[in-house]
Amino acid sequence: MKRVKLIVAYDGTNYHGWQTQPNAVTIEEVLNHHLSELLKEEIKVIGASRTDAGVHALGNVAVFDTSARMPADKISYALNTRLPEDIRIQDSCEVPSDFHPRFQKTTKTYEYRILNRRFPDPTRRLNSFFYYYPLDVVKMQEASLYLVGEHDFKSFCTEKPEVTNTVRTIYSLNVIKEGDMIIIRVTGNGFLYNMVRIIAGTLIRVGGGFIEPQQIKKILEAKDRTLAGETARPEGLTLIGIRYGGNIQGERM
Amino acid sequence: MKRVKLIVAYDGTNYHGWQTQPNAVTIEEVLNHHLSELLKEEIKVIGASRTDAGVHALGNVAVFDTSARMPADKISYALNTRLPEDIRIQDSCEVPSDFHPRFQKTTKTYEYRILNRRFPDPTRRLNSFFYYYPLDVVKMQEASLYLVGEHDFKSFCTEKPEVTNTVRTIYSLNVIKEGDMIIIRVTGNGFLYNMVRIIAGTLIRVGGGFIEPQQIKKILEAKDRTLAGETARPEGLTLIGIRYGGNIQGERM
Repeated sequence: MKRVKLIVAYDGTNYHGWQTQPNAVTIEEVLNHHLSELLKEEIKVIGASRTDAGVHALGNVAVFDTSARMPADKISYALNTRLPEDIRIQDSCEVPSDFHPRFQKTTKTYEYRILNRRFPDPTRRLNSFFYYYPLDVVKMQEASLYLVGEHDFKSFCTEKPEVTNTVRTIYSLNVIKEGDMIIIRVTGNGFLYNMVRIIAGTLIRVGGGFIEPQQIKKILEAKDRTLAGETARPEGLTLIGIRYGGNIQGERM
Repeated sequence: MKRVKLIVAYDGTNYHGWQTQPNAVTIEEVLNHHLSELLKEEIKVIGASRTDAGVHALGNVAVFDTSARMPADKISYALNTRLPEDIRIQDSCEVPSDFHPRFQKTTKTYEYRILNRRFPDPTRRLNSFFYYYPLDVVKMQEASLYLVGEHDFKSFCTEKPEVTNTVRTIYSLNVIKEGDMIIIRVTGNGFLYNMVRIIAGTLIRVGGGFIEPQQIKKILEAKDRTLAGETARPEGLTLIGIRYGGNIQGERM
């Protein structure tokens, strides 16, 4: 019996998120199905990040145990020939049997992409959020500085009853303009439910002039979700990678 | 009666190209259908570039005549609310009644995108061609220089009986590396059938070491299609814009 780690990339457009649920197709379920067929035993993966419906990933992480003889590093290639084209394994390798993708310290990186132009671009519609009104990137950059560091992000999450500690650390938060695309890139030690999408929604409000950059400090201190911006749409969000004490997995070359 | 020009962007994945044909959905047909419903008269557009199945556009051009009273510049917005999300009008304006999108001098710009990495990236699969083996971009750049200028491109097109003159001028041809994406950007006064895709296929052979850059000169001179590389897959190709003596239409901001 060995434990295998997968780096999983997907276009989340056609999935109801990661986690298996009745009457909806999910990434987890598709992986379980094709891994079980490939390895000829029932496989159940454990995912690191249970991304929401419509959210993408370049480097989500999953592990599973198998007694199959196929070498761990060959599983990526064999599985990719079976998977639908909107899911692709980026790497597979054997890990210690006590490696759990969630219950240890990690650094996660997300990108939220905003297409800021006059008309939508159909060729980029699936992995960016189209926003018509001009955004002031300098203000968004200024606002982002208030969010870096250790803070109670209660104002920037959708409440979940099982989560009582809403303190997290953001290591870096950059707002980058590449042509007509504004990319919010954030790295931290963990993210609360909808946290990146609420940060994106709030920075969009800042870029549009509805919230001043320095107000972010007060919104954090108030610990009141209603003061932050809306939860930005899922199609703009991509989980870039998860680092377990090494290099960031799934980073673009 | 007025003549209206549209700048049309589309993700070509789900279409059998531009031109109307029986038993297949095309861009032209979808535009005709929704324009006729919007303007309440039968509309037939004339397209500048009849892109092939699976090819994308940011700035294809189409014109049509209408007696409807809707101002020409409002048609883009009204039409976009009716079109499927993989087609979006980027601009609409009135043009002189003798403006024809094909029968006059134009400058066209295309991009061919090659995703050169170990595994496919599902989030970029629809508008790039995935190629596993490492490509030598410097060699591709060297080879591209032989194609710039006025040449007989008979070796670089799929023959069409009605086309007898295969001399065209390429004004610029750049091979740009952006991370793991290699972008071939070409501007010229006209392109033969499959010409950009055959140039891309040939540059991929050069990048892989199968054709030396200086051989391109001989392939041009031979006027023999069998000596050039294969026609690269359609999903990598995007018509960026068409210039009619002005700025390039549909250029990304």
